[in-house]
Amino acid sequence: MKPNLQIALDSQTLAEALETVREVGDVVDILEVGTVLCLQDGMEPVRALRALYPEKIILADTKCADAGSTVAKNCKDAGADWMTVICCATIPTMEAANKEIDQLQVELYGDWTFEQAKQWKEIGIEQVVYHQSRDALLSGETWGDKDLDKIRKLVKMGFKVSVTGGLDVNTIELFKGIDVYSFIAGRGIAKASNPKKAAQDFKDKIKEIF
Amino acid sequence: MKPNLQIALDSQTLAEALETVREVGDVVDILEVGTVLCLQDGMEPVRALRALYPEKIILADTKCADAGSTVAKNCKDAGADWMTVICCATIPTMEAANKEIDQLQVELYGDWTFEQAKQWKEIGIEQVVYHQSRDALLSGETWGDKDLDKIRKLVKMGFKVSVTGGLDVNTIELFKGIDVYSFIAGRGIAKASNPKKAAQDFKDKIKEIF
Repeated sequence: MKPNLQIALDSQTLAEALETVREVGDVVDILEVGTVLCLQDGMEPVRALRALYPEKIILADTKCADAGSTVAKNCKDAGADWMTVICCATIPTMEAANKEIDQLQVELYGDWTFEQAKQWKEIGIEQVVYHQSRDALLSGETWGDKDLDKIRKLVKMGFKVSVTGGLDVNTIELFKGIDVYSFIAGRGIAKASNPKKAAQDFKDKIKEIF
Repeated sequence: MKPNLQIALDSQTLAEALETVREVGDVVDILEVGTVLCLQDGMEPVRALRALYPEKIILADTKCADAGSTVAKNCKDAGADWMTVICCATIPTMEAANKEIDQLQVELYGDWTFEQAKQWKEIGIEQVVYHQSRDALLSGETWGDKDLDKIRKLVKMGFKVSVTGGLDVNTIELFKGIDVYSFIAGRGIAKASNPKKAAQDFKDKIKEIF
């Protein structure tokens, strides 16, 4: 299966997110309400996207760390198909969340271990997001073999692995031969001079490489 | 200094939070907009509490894991004095957040290490929150010597350590002799038959023990 393209809507307001969505909503596969937007406007952006796109996959990037059951139920009630939990959440939190929503993505930040990943697998979590943090990127880090090796290992464990952080059309090639589940782009699409074309370029590049 | 009392407003709606705040706002020292409420209603509850209590300390429990600068700026703009970051956030994320808001609390979940804590101290973070996760409590865990030893060690490192998770008036005694910065209670106060009395009982017990 070809990797999906996921747009991370990380704007400050719902209105600003809708400007992007208007352009790229029909091109991308997954619509993500980013953490910044969740924390600014709560679940309203999730409800708005669900109203606009009854058939698309909608992800609430809550980075849930506790109260898994409540947060997941709220996301689902608002219309989200998937939500994210943070990798340092406890297993009971992840389990509780996993019961209430279609699918969870574990967001890999900081010092997670493959031992933890094994536990996530055991409780039925299918997805992980391999992350280059924006702040890490801002401080000069970038994608390298160290990252790609970890991604390969996660794929081998049976996870659907999405990747994100400073991606552009050219960085897609780095992942050639790896079974990436989704490429997640935010500013790379939303801040492009022509977001629709940027999204289509991503799709075309994915088609070319995979 | 006697420990503070912090109310965690972890309701589903701002209105419900205000029902609690009306009762206990003048009794407690710190008003926390809980993560569930942040994710439901965004920053509006922070703005509402700031409008109602111009002089109280207001904490936004965002459990920020990335985009530290943006999230912290948004919290501050909404009127928050403090915000939380999750312990598995990268150091650059914490540093970026710490620049934009008065104080950060690092929320200790899962497998954090004292080595990490040393790094937080080095970048100027003053506060940590020692947590019994609600989901861990629901699965049968409780406060024990293991927790108290870690709290003592964090205090010794120079952190202001707040504690939270299933606290009631009786569990306060467990912390006798430890320099706790704040006791954080949620349901223990909000769901009491008389929240104002419950908050006052906490305050009285803190006065008695410390």
